[in-house]
Amino acid sequence: MTVESSAVLGERTVTPDAQVDRSAGVTAPAGFRAAGVIAGIKPAGKPDLTVVVNDGPSYAAAGVFTTNKVKAAPVLWSQQVLTAGKLKAVVLNSGGANACTGPEGFQDTHKTAEKLAEVLGVGAAEIGVCSTGLIGERLPMDKLLPGIEAAVDALGNEPAHGLAAATAVMTTDNVPKQAVLKHPGGWSIGGFAKGAGMCAPNMATMLSVITTDAIVDQPHLDHALRNAVGKTFNRLDVDGGTSTNDTVLLLSSGASGVTVPADEFEAALTALAADLVKQLQADAEGVTKHVSITVQNAATEAEAVAAAKIVAEDNLCKTAFFASDPNWGRIAMAVGNAPTAFDPSLLDITLNGAAICVAGGKGVDRSEADLSGPEIDVVIDLHAGDASATVLTTDLSHAYVEENSAYSS
Amino acid sequence: MTVESSAVLGERTVTPDAQVDRSAGVTAPAGFRAAGVIAGIKPAGKPDLTVVVNDGPSYAAAGVFTTNKVKAAPVLWSQQVLTAGKLKAVVLNSGGANACTGPEGFQDTHKTAEKLAEVLGVGAAEIGVCSTGLIGERLPMDKLLPGIEAAVDALGNEPAHGLAAATAVMTTDNVPKQAVLKHPGGWSIGGFAKGAGMCAPNMATMLSVITTDAIVDQPHLDHALRNAVGKTFNRLDVDGGTSTNDTVLLLSSGASGVTVPADEFEAALTALAADLVKQLQADAEGVTKHVSITVQNAATEAEAVAAAKIVAEDNLCKTAFFASDPNWGRIAMAVGNAPTAFDPSLLDITLNGAAICVAGGKGVDRSEADLSGPEIDVVIDLHAGDASATVLTTDLSHAYVEENSAYSS
Repeated sequence: MTVESSAVLGERTVTPDAQVDRSAGVTAPAGFRAAGVIAGIKPAGKPDLTVVVNDGPSYAAAGVFTTNKVKAAPVLWSQQVLTAGKLKAVVLNSGGANACTGPEGFQDTHKTAEKLAEVLGVGAAEIGVCSTGLIGERLPMDKLLPGIEAAVDALGNEPAHGLAAATAVMTTDNVPKQAVLKHPGGWSIGGFAKGAGMCAPNMATMLSVITTDAIVDQPHLDHALRNAVGKTFNRLDVDGGTSTNDTVLLLSSGASGVTVPADEFEAALTALAADLVKQLQADAEGVTKHVSITVQNAATEAEAVAAAKIVAEDNLCKTAFFASDPNWGRIAMAVGNAPTAFDPSLLDITLNGAAICVAGGKGVDRSEADLSGPEIDVVIDLHAGDASATVLTTDLSHAYVEENSAYSS
Repeated sequence: MTVESSAVLGERTVTPDAQVDRSAGVTAPAGFRAAGVIAGIKPAGKPDLTVVVNDGPSYAAAGVFTTNKVKAAPVLWSQQVLTAGKLKAVVLNSGGANACTGPEGFQDTHKTAEKLAEVLGVGAAEIGVCSTGLIGERLPMDKLLPGIEAAVDALGNEPAHGLAAATAVMTTDNVPKQAVLKHPGGWSIGGFAKGAGMCAPNMATMLSVITTDAIVDQPHLDHALRNAVGKTFNRLDVDGGTSTNDTVLLLSSGASGVTVPADEFEAALTALAADLVKQLQADAEGVTKHVSITVQNAATEAEAVAAAKIVAEDNLCKTAFFASDPNWGRIAMAVGNAPTAFDPSLLDITLNGAAICVAGGKGVDRSEADLSGPEIDVVIDLHAGDASATVLTTDLSHAYVEENSAYSS
């Protein structure tokens, strides 16, 4: 995909010939190795342990984390180590969130970091840790720790290594999600993400690791990551549930030798993150429709996001999307409950290009809004200002109910 | 049911022998007549027009209405006429919400009130109007206005008239919902309610009319209604959708001749409203579980309500309830996202009496929480203060998805 096609997620400029594709991920930038292995944490014997190593020369890193007050042990750990602004490696496990596990759970995270540090010959305070899976259960450390040794043995910088890393973090995801942006200026950004449910990232998505070989100083790296996440991961809302483990980590090796201006780096990072978010949306639990909710002419961007999210989270709107039903009354109802200033008699709603609600009342006939395909574009014009925002969401299908009532996650 | 069994919805005292039962509704108090007829507004030929008449001698009335910014025409009308604090009659239609219908829709409501006023020989400003059904379509006035004449011809004060009135307001409801409280002091309160989806009442439920023959002055009537609704209708949350038409009207005839102390009246009204809310919960769209979410020891009652509502609206919690799955991690995740101050390391969660999460971590084994029956009691202790609140909700089932994707409402 080109960066233009993801421009719906936020205004930004990228060199036109800098394209995002999905042929590689975290190992595409120079200076990174990765691995994904089967440690035995998941009972089914699927890949469940990922390691990403930054071989430098720079180790500048930044992270954004869940806003949930109930934070998993690895979130507390990674927030703490990132106060120093650098990471030499990250270890991620699926098969257990290590959330609501008390001081023992934090000790497990600490031991995980120490083990990887020992094998790599670095300090534990230079290791990020992420976990995902069931909340409230301790991790099987007798499997996880040997798994780290196996992962380090398997490290490499081929595309296959990046894909293995993206695969071993999956939970209810059906496909691994990775993307790369190779800049014609001689540097690149790569990344993976996982997440399919409990997915309304706030300051971060479920789990994502992004690498770059650009030379960007740590304050600019941090600034770019916060801005990019705000425009991308934070505008995906599958089911309103911000998880206990949401984390996005950005590691830079500086191995390209190219110093990149902050603005240019941020634009490229945003394009890459937008592509990962599109992949998260496409693989959301039970998804049959990819829904884009744009709120135009709100008083502020925050109000535009809030209004779009209340529609994205409304089960009556989501079941109507599932039914391909252009039920704009439910959208008007949802927007009317948003913490957003507007005059209901000016409200316009357009569904896949059909102006079905005009000036707060009936517009063109429902039959003109064709929602039968997989893509649904909702545009809500509040006529209350000049700020806009787009939030991506999905429908509420039988498969969502099936998946979430059959799987204890 | 006795009033004690609904005490979960809020602390209050009622004379122990004042019982709520469902044998009658709005016609039980002296001084009221009602009717429900088939006007032809609904295509299927089902009852769709209700009239409730107050024959006095008092006409004191109060109302509470949706907080949605997109308000239906009948909500705007009824709010306006209630500024005078009295109502001689109410007309309610199902088969169309008359919301998002512009100035023409407001004129339709005005004509509806004028027609009933003319037939009854009263003023239009003494008529309340409520509508429910599809948003965005004009009402068929050629059917509605003759229906008013038919309804007035059918008025009566038998239990059957009250039941017909409760029936003609139904939309996706499966059963009519009414209740009566006959006070041993010689006065009574009766009422009906409708609502099954788009149901997170805020300042009111979908539609409810409550009558009383007690003598209560209008300011006390208004105060009692606001307090009772705050503790009952506003603590039901099926799907987070506060509709455009939510209305609760309270009419008093004074025909019992008994002057009732304000406190006593409010307690009785709260018990009656709590019973109506239990009926709304039991008939919610696709419901297979009746879920009660109690948040204990919050810093404030408002925070307790907010925390309980975020769990009630969370699709991952709701699908787990559907699956009878004691998945407390999802509840911890949801509570962690609430605008509520608490220390996650003190969080306790009890499911049907089993202390499954203790001090922020795993408590008794999941197998000890039996959620296989239709009732699920969730108790969340924040250990952050001494305020508590209970919110009633339902599970998210295949039937909810089916009903809301098959029916354009």
